[in-house]
Amino acid sequence: MGRKAAGLFVKGPEGPFERKEFERRAVSAKDVDIDIKYAGICASDMHTATNDWRGSDYSELGICPGHEIAGVVRAVGSEVTKFKVGDRVGVGCMVDSCRTCEDCQEGNEQLCGKGNVPTYNGRYKFDHHPDKGAKTYGGYSTNIVVDEAFVLRIPDNLTLDKAAPLLCCGITTFSPLYHYGLKKGQHFAVAGLGGLGHMAVKFALAIGAKVTVLSRGTAKREDARKLGAHDYVDVTNKKEMRRARRSIHFILDTISAKHDLNAYLRLLKNDGKLIIVGGAPDPLPLQAFSLIGGRKIVGGSPIGGIAETQTMLDFCGEHNVYPDIELISADYVHEAYKRLESADVRYRFVIDASSLEREIVFPAVKL
Amino acid sequence: MGRKAAGLFVKGPEGPFERKEFERRAVSAKDVDIDIKYAGICASDMHTATNDWRGSDYSELGICPGHEIAGVVRAVGSEVTKFKVGDRVGVGCMVDSCRTCEDCQEGNEQLCGKGNVPTYNGRYKFDHHPDKGAKTYGGYSTNIVVDEAFVLRIPDNLTLDKAAPLLCCGITTFSPLYHYGLKKGQHFAVAGLGGLGHMAVKFALAIGAKVTVLSRGTAKREDARKLGAHDYVDVTNKKEMRRARRSIHFILDTISAKHDLNAYLRLLKNDGKLIIVGGAPDPLPLQAFSLIGGRKIVGGSPIGGIAETQTMLDFCGEHNVYPDIELISADYVHEAYKRLESADVRYRFVIDASSLEREIVFPAVKL
Repeated sequence: MGRKAAGLFVKGPEGPFERKEFERRAVSAKDVDIDIKYAGICASDMHTATNDWRGSDYSELGICPGHEIAGVVRAVGSEVTKFKVGDRVGVGCMVDSCRTCEDCQEGNEQLCGKGNVPTYNGRYKFDHHPDKGAKTYGGYSTNIVVDEAFVLRIPDNLTLDKAAPLLCCGITTFSPLYHYGLKKGQHFAVAGLGGLGHMAVKFALAIGAKVTVLSRGTAKREDARKLGAHDYVDVTNKKEMRRARRSIHFILDTISAKHDLNAYLRLLKNDGKLIIVGGAPDPLPLQAFSLIGGRKIVGGSPIGGIAETQTMLDFCGEHNVYPDIELISADYVHEAYKRLESADVRYRFVIDASSLEREIVFPAVKL
Repeated sequence: MGRKAAGLFVKGPEGPFERKEFERRAVSAKDVDIDIKYAGICASDMHTATNDWRGSDYSELGICPGHEIAGVVRAVGSEVTKFKVGDRVGVGCMVDSCRTCEDCQEGNEQLCGKGNVPTYNGRYKFDHHPDKGAKTYGGYSTNIVVDEAFVLRIPDNLTLDKAAPLLCCGITTFSPLYHYGLKKGQHFAVAGLGGLGHMAVKFALAIGAKVTVLSRGTAKREDARKLGAHDYVDVTNKKEMRRARRSIHFILDTISAKHDLNAYLRLLKNDGKLIIVGGAPDPLPLQAFSLIGGRKIVGGSPIGGIAETQTMLDFCGEHNVYPDIELISADYVHEAYKRLESADVRYRFVIDASSLEREIVFPAVKL
């Protein structure tokens, strides 16, 4: 028998969320049973809850989002070696992968050739897993059971509320800087200053780069300064764009709407890199000559592997890097989604999971 | 006083070529005076002669194309240290660069921040050069004078006629494989099987990669086999494209027409690279998700630096890599351009420069 839990679920693309009590699976030999303390709200949660990306599976209990989870170990299975009761831990976007493909073997579970099992809106599918066939329910809940291979250790000096968003927002921005090699002294720019963008500024500063924020208009100029960015370029201002030409080594592109890649590529020095984590749904017109002349690259990057996520958390501990958050109760989730949609958050909502312990009466709003 | 020369010139975008006698500059301290033996015909020659890319400068003597030059040293300046009379040498796409910018200092003269001086249709512009202000005339000629810093050594076992195209076609395909790191045992594919494509097949085979040719239809299947490619994929055939999915580490994209990058990106394994050298003039629609999920990159690459070009020539000597050529006389240049335009050459025309010693009467054709 598993342990009782409570969580927020949607049963269809219009919502609303409702609080449900349910049961987490029994703790198997390699499982870690975690009391969730905080769960960050990621834009993907919203897109999945509302079926923006299609592929949302509302069957069984519906969808309980949340893949930015921070908590404390309550129990461990008989074969668990990495964690013990009381440890401060996190869970990110994945809870399982095939573990045998080339990519998994290299520690790139995020690239698993057979597809990793997402923390919510997924289903355990590999023979090795004791819960094969079961749906996954995420972090907007009081507790969760996860194989220790997908549990991360949170450094002592990070508070759990601020650590939570690192598990997706943090690794999604850290991984490209780490994998594609941003170096101390280089000129880094982030395109877009939302949840991902603000983390990118913090990581790049900690790495020792010169940091520029690229954004439309001047609304975010002051925010960029507050975050410690050295420069700000309004991408709609031709003069500012001309000034920034060929000056940047590395652009992290967090923009999720259509935009002109070529204009950003002109800001790169020779051998410069523009790495996309934003994922605009429409195709972006790319001029071959934007890349050829200066031997530039456009790359992509999805979250990160488990070992790399631990490296990121340790880096955050060492350099005191953590997101700016707004802590909310579970009953605020509808308002939070509305505000997230209009980019009205600096920079991440985090649900205090203790607020899930009590009954919540949601109004019959549409998501 | 410089030495007399003869070469092929166009005075306007419609041609025709005419043979002209002219004078090369006197040999300065660092200059190498080269008797040209062979000059390859590159597609850029044609695009420049006909002003396809705009920016063609027909002033003074007009345009004498040719940047795939192989010859023998006839004389050297007083301070030349790298070459002596009788040496077998080559000249590629550049004859000067600023030499002081970051890129030049790193041996990437092709990326020179101030713009390198092209071998033809350019003008010496840097103070350090004894011929500052003079136009550059290329390799469709009997002799040329070039600063030793831009002269390459041709290994003894390469014949000069086959070595000539290596100076552009060779380095343009070798540089991306070298810079972006194609490794032995990896699966390599070239998109397009023309001059660039056939060299890419040869280099990748010499590196020890598995080689696939990607081309439209089946016309080039037999050519690919003859070149030693292990596999051929007709990109218009859905079944063949499905079979090749996620199987390739590295695609070199030599296609100069509009094409669907996303379809090619689907053939890459995770962390795969698609490097563009083809330069389609229209923008290529790029889906962000074609890159993000598998952490793939699209890169560009222009020719290569001088040191890298020497590495390429030495590699060709060591591995017996050389292009397939069709040797022609200078009076065949109009037919050669027509056939090049319809991709009717396997795989590179090379002008025997001795045919420029005598008078040529060209018909009044249009280019």
